[in-house]
This record gives sequence, C-alpha cells and structure tokens, in this order.
Amino acid sequence: MTGPSGIDHAWLPDAALRGIGSRRVTIEGDGPLVDTLRAEVAYAQGNAGALQGDADIVFRLDGDADTGPEGFTLTRSGGRTTVTAAAPAGLLYGFFHVVRLGAAAFTDAPEQTHRPALSRRMLNHWDNIDVHPVMGQVERGYAGGSLFWEDGRARGDRDRVRAYARLLAACGINAVCVNNVNVHGTEARLLTDRISEVAAIAGELGEYGLRTFLSVSFAAPVVLGGLDTADPLDDRVRDWWRTAADHAYAHIPDFGGFVVKADSEGQPGPFAYGRSHADGANVIADALAPHGGTVHWRAFVYNHVQDWRDRTTDRARAAYDHFAALDGQFKDNAVLQVKHGPMDFQVREPVSPVIGALSRTRVAVELQATQEYTGQQRHVCALAPMWSGVLGFRPEGEDGATVGQLADGGGLVAVSNAGADPYWTGHPLAQFNLYAYGRLAWQPDADPQQLLHEWTELTFSPEETADPERLRSGLRAVLRGSWETYEKYTAPLGVGFMVQPGHHYGPGVDGYEYSPWGTYHFADRDGIGVDRSRATGTGYAAQYAKPWSQTYETPESCPDELLLFFHHVPYGHVLHSGKTVIQHIYDTHFEGVEEAEAAQGVWATLADLVAPARHARVAELYEEQLRSAREWRDQVNSYFLRKSGIPDAGGRRIY
Amino acid sequence: MTGPSGIDHAWLPDAALRGIGSRRVTIEGDGPLVDTLRAEVAYAQGNAGALQGDADIVFRLDGDADTGPEGFTLTRSGGRTTVTAAAPAGLLYGFFHVVRLGAAAFTDAPEQTHRPALSRRMLNHWDNIDVHPVMGQVERGYAGGSLFWEDGRARGDRDRVRAYARLLAACGINAVCVNNVNVHGTEARLLTDRISEVAAIAGELGEYGLRTFLSVSFAAPVVLGGLDTADPLDDRVRDWWRTAADHAYAHIPDFGGFVVKADSEGQPGPFAYGRSHADGANVIADALAPHGGTVHWRAFVYNHVQDWRDRTTDRARAAYDHFAALDGQFKDNAVLQVKHGPMDFQVREPVSPVIGALSRTRVAVELQATQEYTGQQRHVCALAPMWSGVLGFRPEGEDGATVGQLADGGGLVAVSNAGADPYWTGHPLAQFNLYAYGRLAWQPDADPQQLLHEWTELTFSPEETADPERLRSGLRAVLRGSWETYEKYTAPLGVGFMVQPGHHYGPGVDGYEYSPWGTYHFADRDGIGVDRSRATGTGYAAQYAKPWSQTYETPESCPDELLLFFHHVPYGHVLHSGKTVIQHIYDTHFEGVEEAEAAQGVWATLADLVAPARHARVAELYEEQLRSAREWRDQVNSYFLRKSGIPDAGGRRIY
Repeated sequence: MTGPSGIDHAWLPDAALRGIGSRRVTIEGDGPLVDTLRAEVAYAQGNAGALQGDADIVFRLDGDADTGPEGFTLTRSGGRTTVTAAAPAGLLYGFFHVVRLGAAAFTDAPEQTHRPALSRRMLNHWDNIDVHPVMGQVERGYAGGSLFWEDGRARGDRDRVRAYARLLAACGINAVCVNNVNVHGTEARLLTDRISEVAAIAGELGEYGLRTFLSVSFAAPVVLGGLDTADPLDDRVRDWWRTAADHAYAHIPDFGGFVVKADSEGQPGPFAYGRSHADGANVIADALAPHGGTVHWRAFVYNHVQDWRDRTTDRARAAYDHFAALDGQFKDNAVLQVKHGPMDFQVREPVSPVIGALSRTRVAVELQATQEYTGQQRHVCALAPMWSGVLGFRPEGEDGATVGQLADGGGLVAVSNAGADPYWTGHPLAQFNLYAYGRLAWQPDADPQQLLHEWTELTFSPEETADPERLRSGLRAVLRGSWETYEKYTAPLGVGFMVQPGHHYGPGVDGYEYSPWGTYHFADRDGIGVDRSRATGTGYAAQYAKPWSQTYETPESCPDELLLFFHHVPYGHVLHSGKTVIQHIYDTHFEGVEEAEAAQGVWATLADLVAPARHARVAELYEEQLRSAREWRDQVNSYFLRKSGIPDAGGRRIY
Repeated sequence: MTGPSGIDHAWLPDAALRGIGSRRVTIEGDGPLVDTLRAEVAYAQGNAGALQGDADIVFRLDGDADTGPEGFTLTRSGGRTTVTAAAPAGLLYGFFHVVRLGAAAFTDAPEQTHRPALSRRMLNHWDNIDVHPVMGQVERGYAGGSLFWEDGRARGDRDRVRAYARLLAACGINAVCVNNVNVHGTEARLLTDRISEVAAIAGELGEYGLRTFLSVSFAAPVVLGGLDTADPLDDRVRDWWRTAADHAYAHIPDFGGFVVKADSEGQPGPFAYGRSHADGANVIADALAPHGGTVHWRAFVYNHVQDWRDRTTDRARAAYDHFAALDGQFKDNAVLQVKHGPMDFQVREPVSPVIGALSRTRVAVELQATQEYTGQQRHVCALAPMWSGVLGFRPEGEDGATVGQLADGGGLVAVSNAGADPYWTGHPLAQFNLYAYGRLAWQPDADPQQLLHEWTELTFSPEETADPERLRSGLRAVLRGSWETYEKYTAPLGVGFMVQPGHHYGPGVDGYEYSPWGTYHFADRDGIGVDRSRATGTGYAAQYAKPWSQTYETPESCPDELLLFFHHVPYGHVLHSGKTVIQHIYDTHFEGVEEAEAAQGVWATLADLVAPARHARVAELYEEQLRSAREWRDQVNSYFLRKSGIPDAGGRRIY
C-alpha cells in the first residue's frame, strides 16, 4: 500500500493520513474494494502513532443510498463523521475525500453527497513494451520508462503499479489504458497471446477500482488473425473481434474495453476499405457489448502528409469534417474521443468545434497531461486553468451546456504524464497536473485555484512546516500563473507550433513551417497568422455554432489570445489590449522570462520548507527552464524583428 | 579478383580489360604486388577469349628507373608496349594506366613517365563497427553498411574488401583509414586487443599496395591504457603511445599510421591538459617514427557550442586561429589534415586560408566524397569540378603555388562515399566522385572533364553499345554541370547550410540559424549574408594573403559565388552578373530544377545503352532528386519572398 521504497508519496504522504489514522474507524461491508479500504485505514493508523482523537469515523455500505456506483454521502455531526455509499467504490472515494478535507472532516457540517459528474475518468498511457532508441519507451513521456512494462514484458514489481493505482483513485481517476495508441508490433499481441500480462496489471489497478483498457490496432484481424482483410463489414472480421473481446474478458472480468487510433498518422483504419469511422467503431463496439465494454474511438484523423504550398487544406477542420456527419451513427457503447483543441495540445487553442456538434454521440474529451508542447516536465506549467477553461466553454453560447457537461456521455481522458521516475512525473511540480486532471474529471467545474490549494495542502503538509503561510503563498506564486508564463515566452496569440521538429522541445519558429503536418503560421515581412474565417479563409470559424462562429470570424471580435489562430494580420494590428501584435510579441517574451525568473527566485526561498531532495530537483529543473525560456525569448524576438523590421518600443536588446 | 557476385565492376568491367587480355603479356619481377599484377593479367586473359593481337605488353622492374616508388615509364613503339618501374607498385599503376588508355595503349607514341604528384592519396572511412540506430553504421554514409565491419567485427567476406582495394588502386588511391574519426568505445579497441581484425583488412588492402591507417582516440591512454591522464607531455603517456605503435606494427608491418580528430565536436584532445595541438600530434608522431609511420592530425577544431547571439565569434576563422601559429612545430612525420574549406563541405566555400599559411608544416587537404551536403547520393552531383577548383587555387596569387602543390607534403584525403551497397556508392553515378578523387590525388591539375571522359569510357564501354556518341554525350550532359545545378537549387551565393538539422538532407533555411554550430546566414527583411570583412566584419577575410584578402574584403571585388560567405548585402545588391541578389536567388532556383529535369530527361533517353538494372536505379533516384529539388526551390523562394517582399521579375509561381 505504501509506495515502493524511494518512490514519492505525492498527494498521499503519511502526514495527510493522520486525521484518519489518529481516530477510531469502523468499516461496515465486504468485497475487494472494502478490503482495500480496510488496508488503507490500517496503514494510516499504523503510521499515526497512538489513537488520540475521540471522534469516530464510520464507513458504511447502504444499497439504498442515492449515491450511484461511485458517489458517497458525508455526514459530520456530534463528533462523528460518516461516509455512506451504495457501492464499495463510493466508500473508497469517500475515504480519500476525508483525507483531502483534513481536520475539516471532523467539524460539524451539513450533509453532502458527492457523485462524479463524469462516469469515465481515464488516463491513456502512451507506453510501449519495447524501448525505441530515440523516442524512448513512453511516447512523449518525460518521466522515465513505463510504469507497466519493463524489459520487454509486464513489470514484475507490482507494488509500484498498485501505488500508482492508489494515487489515481485518490484524485478520482477510474480507468487506465495501459499501452500506446500507436500500437506497434510487439504491443499488438497484448490483445491475444499476451493478454495475461495485461490481466496482471489489471489485477493491481482493480484493487483501487480502476478499469483497464487496451489500445488495439484496427488491423489486428490481419496482423494477428491472419485474415486478408480488416473490413469492418466483413463477417470474418466481425467474428474475429468478437473472439478477441471474449478472450480479453475471459482473462479480465472487469476489463474496460479498447482504445483505437485509426486512419491517423499512419495507423490503419476503415478508410482502406471504403468504410466510415462509424463502421469501424461499431464492429468493435459490437464485440464488446455482450461484456459491457466500451470502445474509445479517437477523432484525431487528419492529413499528415499535407503540402505546405496548399493553403486550402486546414488541419484544424479535420475532426469536424470527418466526424460531424457521423453523429448518431455510433453504437451506444462506442465513445468518440476528441482532443480538446482542433490541432494538437498547443499551449493555446480554441475548443474543438466538433465537441459541440455531436449531440447524438457519446463524446469523451481528451486532454494531455504529459507536457509535450508545454515544457516537457522541465518547465513548470500548471495546466488546470487551461483545462478548466476548456471544460467551462459553452459551444452554443451562454445558454448552452459546457464542454464538461457535454462530456458526460464519454467522459474525460488525459494522456498520462507519469512514468517510472521516483517522483512519478519527472518534475515534482508536474504531479499537480495529474492530480488536477483527476479532480476535474470528477468535477469539471471545480475551481483550479482551489484544486491547487488542495494539492498543496496534501503534498507539502504546510502545517507541519515552520512557516505554513510562506510555503502556501510560495507554491501559489510558482504554480498559479505558470501556464500563462509559459505561453508568454513561447508561440504567441494562439498561433501554435514554432517548436523543434520531432521532439518538440525548444523554439523552432519555422520548425514546422514547410512541413507536411499542416501546422503553419505564414509569417512574412508584413504579418502573421492563419486566416480561418469563413469570408476569406479556410472556413474553419464556420464550424462553430453561434455566437462563436461570429466571434471568431473577424479580427475585431476575436479574443486576443486566439487572434493568430483565426486571422492573418499585419504586425501593426492593434489588439484589444491596445498593443500592436509585434509589440505584444516582444513584451510577452520579455515578461515571460522575467516571470519565470521570479518564480525561480520564489522557489529558492522555500528551501527550508520543502524536503531537500524535492527542493533540489525543482531548483535544478528551473535552471533548464530559464535557459530554455531565454532561448525562446531571443529566438522568437529575433525572428520577428528580422522579419518585421519594427523595433521594440521598449528599446530592449533583441539580437 | 573479380568482385563478389552481384557487386558492380564500376570502372573495371571485363570489357575494359580486353585490350590487355587479348594480347601476349610478359611480366618480369617478383614480390607480392607483382603477383597481384600476374593475377590481374591472367584474369584479363581468361575473360578475353583467344589471344588475337600480335603486340606484346611487357611489364618490367628496373631498380635504376627514375620513376620513384609508385611511378612508371610507358613506351609504345614497334607494336610493343612496355611499362617500366623502379618498384612493383609502379608496375601495378602502369597496368591500370594501360587499361585506361584502351586501344591507345597500343599505338606508337613518345615515351612518358608518370609519377603521382602526391605521395599520400588516402580515403578516410567514417565507418563504425557498431550500427547506430539513427546514424546507421557509416557516419554520413549513403551506400549501405561498412565495407570493413559487419556484425560487430571485421567482415568475414574478404573478397569484397579485395575487390574494393582493386578499384581504389585502379584510380590511384594508396591508403585507407578503416574507421571513423569519431572513435567510439568499441572502435577504440581496434588499437589494442582488436588489432588483429585491422590486420586482416590490411592484408587484403595491401595486395593492391594500399596502406592501412587507423583512427584513434586521443584519450586512448586513459580509456584503453588505464592511465589517469592523456597529457602528451607525460612520460607514461609517451610510453603508452610507443607501446601501442609497436603493437600495431608487430601485427601490420606495412601499417600507415594514425588519424586523430582531437578537441573537436566532443572528441578529447590536448586542450584538456593545457597543451598545444603540436604537442598532441608530436607525442603520437614520435611513437610512429621508428616504424616510418605518420600521424594525420585533423585541423577541424572549432567551438561547436557557440551562442548564435554572439556575432563576434566566426567558425570560419577557427582552423587558422588554432593552427597558423603552430606552423613549424609539428614533427616531420606529423601531417596536419585540413578540410578544403573553412566550414564543413558545403556546396560552395572559399579555400581554407590555413592551407596557405603553413609553409613549415606538412599539410594534407581533406575533401568529402560522401555527399553529406551535396545530395547524399540521391542527387547527381559530380564534385570533380569543385575539387579541381580547390586544387588549382593559388593562396598567394598568380605567382604562388597551387593548393595541389602545397599538399605535396601531406597529400590529398577524401572521406569515402563507398559502402556495402552493390554499386559501392549507392547512386551508381556517384562512383565518378570516388574515381575522380583518386585521379586528382595522383594528378591534381588533371582536367575534370577529361576525368569524366575516362570514367565514362571505362565504366560504360560506349564502343560496345549501339550508339557510342549518344551515350557519351548523354553521360556528359547528365554529369558535367551537375554540381552547379545542385548549387543552384540549394543554398545561394556561398552562404551555405540551410539544411535540415541532424541528417542534413533537404531544405531548412533557418535549420541552423539559431543553433550552436556557428553556421548562420543572418537573413532579415533587408538582406542576407555574413560580414567577414576586416573592416566591418569578423576579420576572416584578413586571414588570406594578398590578393585574396583584398579580393574578398569588399562586395565589389568579391566573386559572386562567394558573396554571401563574405558579406551581408541588401537583397537589391547588384551582382557582377547584373542581377540583384534576390533575383539571382529566384532565377537559380527555377533554373536548377529545370536543369535537373532536363538531366532526368537525358537519362531516360539512354535506356537502350545502359545495363537495365543500373539504368533503372538511376532513374528511380532521379525521381527523388526532382522531388527534393522542387522542395528546395519552393522553400527557398518562399522564404525569401516572404522576407524580402520583392516579387520575382519573371512573375513565376512562388508560394
């Protein structure tokens, strides 16, 4: 139950368990998850010293409780705290809720019932079994090797997997897909002759109520099954998938289902057979249906061999163009998993218009906790404010539903940022992104600053330090605005990309400008940006419902932070902020570095309040962040000064 | 003696041997190289059918002949052709000379004596024993794996090595360094416990008079010897190198010596001990001296972690700045091996000023046959005209010596373009670069067009085809101007680089613009180029003697083709050609593609005159060359149109 030795306890340090550990606890009920709860309580009590409080905590199952399968009711009165749930998972989530509340769990308060807003809260691990010599083992992973796979097979050291499951459950996550959506040869076989390795992992994850999913190749009937086709309407293919699903459930009774990346970036898909993506998803959905399983079908389909000379093709349009017309055609147990933005996890993107266009399809929204384009866990970049903005966006305007509400059919998914690193996430402060993702999946309208507070209290136990307030305010200063800071010193005003090709770390203003990936900024000596208006551009803006189709249509109405995503404007264009585009670029790049320097300075002042190893690691990473931030500043500013010829109004040094 | 099955005969097809094979041949003399000669003649006769001619050919050793160790005298009179040499190597070179002459070897002519102008004519193979997952086995190799190393050890199939040696001897090459100048861990051990593998290769190479060299690590006394220092002035280090040299010569009596890349791109060197490069070279030279061996010490030393913001540092200056002051300090058996240009084998560079600045040092000039920056053996790019220009350059002006003459102390070296590919060089037409290098090393003032003619006659046997003149003129059209064509569609006017980082293939105008490698073009909206003048720039131009220091000093006197190497000028600057810089960029990029298209068309017309497999391979490579050339054209033109805003006077399509 404790992390393996040397592994960080993240948001479940022993100090966070004292509130429970020091009290008398009664647990009523049976079953595996109740056993897990009992073990948690025993561990907490074993580490808390003698029982001191006189309050009781009661965890009880009540089949009649109106909590749903994962919710719980919390009552606090007369010195007794009671968690009631209709099902064991609810008791476990209630336990972690009490941990989060700390001392507040033991003061009288009105009864509250907590239910997750989204029933599917899944991490996708882009983990491979094999280690690629350049990409490493985890695609876009910045936290060491895989937590699940080691030396070519499922990790023998299961304690680590269980410790991970515990952390995930403690922030509300209830599903994990254990292999990369790009399914390579070795990994394809997890579906068939290597399913027992998946089952072993699933056993550990299941102890904390997590369901296991598997990424599968659409071509599996050919590659693994020896068929001459993967045509989803072919009966042999249908039979093959059914057998494969039966096989999976025979080994893993609580198996969740499959994740599929098809017809995308070289992965096989239904297009090869002239079939639609609904056809493709449905044949797999049908195979899973008898077992209650779900297929997560990714909507990340676009032309990745685009000609940069062709300005009529717009990658941003692709998800809508491919999937909007298929609305209503997917089976009930098929979920369309859509990236939150139309491109690829840039530091700033508009919300994908396809999310609001699928009223008859179960939609899951996909976030990226791993910081591929946001500093690769060498930069501090707390993503909760970005995600909160996405989840609160209302695709049909003020009176419509939020993205968080629209995702209730499919859930919220995040690409994991965790790996075999002792701090789980490489950068110790990147743990917050994992935590915040789980909490937002449970409650999409949670306040990100409140989540930061929660995480800070749990992880750093300020009350146990010499100066709780200094620690709290320091951590707040370092993390709260870190996403905006990162945005300031990287690609401006929603234009995106401008990274080094391939690994995506560090500046490369023209890095993707003449590439086949559909990711351009079109900067010339006069201006910059992509015209995606209906009137004169690619028409992408018209994929939105009103009011957004109008808001985004003109430079005048478009929000500053997305201006260059939607419009090509002269460097002298005046933003709503009152600044010209070029001066905004210069100013934000100088400011971003200054803010990062200030954050580094704040971190230094916390040395006496943070565990030395953790403090040192973050301090070391700040050195790299600052080096990189200065490189971003200077390359971006030099690029635009050389191109525009317009000097910085502030007269600062640009090379 | 023949190539292993499936391996191309290159410039020694059976047809080329008929002139000798069909005649009576007398060979007088003994020794290994004479045995090789006898075997060559026997092979030629075995493949020529019955003896037909009535002329004799006589090969004779005459210790008194004034031919030097490798030269020969050719007499042709009265129907008898006689090759006389003072040493066996001369007879072998004479044999290949007779092959080259073809029928002309058997017509009466005045006596001629041929001696190589340069005594060292070496190929450097950047071959590793191990295969790197990204770089492959041969660094910057485009012709398959290594000819020498396979499956982690010296190749078992020695026939191939011997066939290679034969081709090299037939164009005049007399030395081969068999491993990469970047000496990795495995390869370091070739010097010590794996020397017998080198000896096995040397045995095959020696059959054709080729001496074997080995690249060694300057840190070998530490890495292999277990010493705590590699300080060249430390007696233990001195002893270690002496023992290592003794060991090498014990295994390889005709061993050539060592090649060392020190203090360069991460390789260790004497700077770490506060010693000069003369100190470093001399300790190794001293170890080799008792055996008559030579150390080739590379002058490729520069700061590869430069800050792009720093305009005062100029990589082009580095070789001169490091080595000019050391002139006269190197031992007699130390050769300073200098790249022909100051940067790194770009399609156009000035001749390195350090070559003319070392009157008391043995200098070897290093060329690059492998087409790292010139199309990677997917583009046709015949380099002989470039090399001829380098070798004919006179660093001290009209009355001074040529580079070819200045290299007489150290020789001419080329990085090999050959590998395990069946055509030896990947692109079949790249064989010409290997051939031309050898011939220019023997005779630096040879006419490159004459060499092309020689190579064409040998390799394609036009007289045996249905239309000799069409084949000759077709090959001439395809190859003769191919270097200029490649230059036209790539980086303009000597500015260099503008390639994709890392692999260096394909356009990346800003690919190295903000990198640490010291390779910048400084293009902005107003102009482009690097100011290397003495008056206002980095002072590099002043490293030349007169008249070049003056010629290069001003844009007015600088040759057009080097203008942007030496000067930063506005896009509207008018070249000596009468065109502006920007119009020159547009025009050459359109022309370059048109010329490549025309060459492709010419090649297509030769289908009936060239062996089908060879023809098809070249035709297939032309597809890639044209795709790539158009990408170059469009990216470069778009980049400069966007930056300059100046339209093409020709009104052609720029994206």
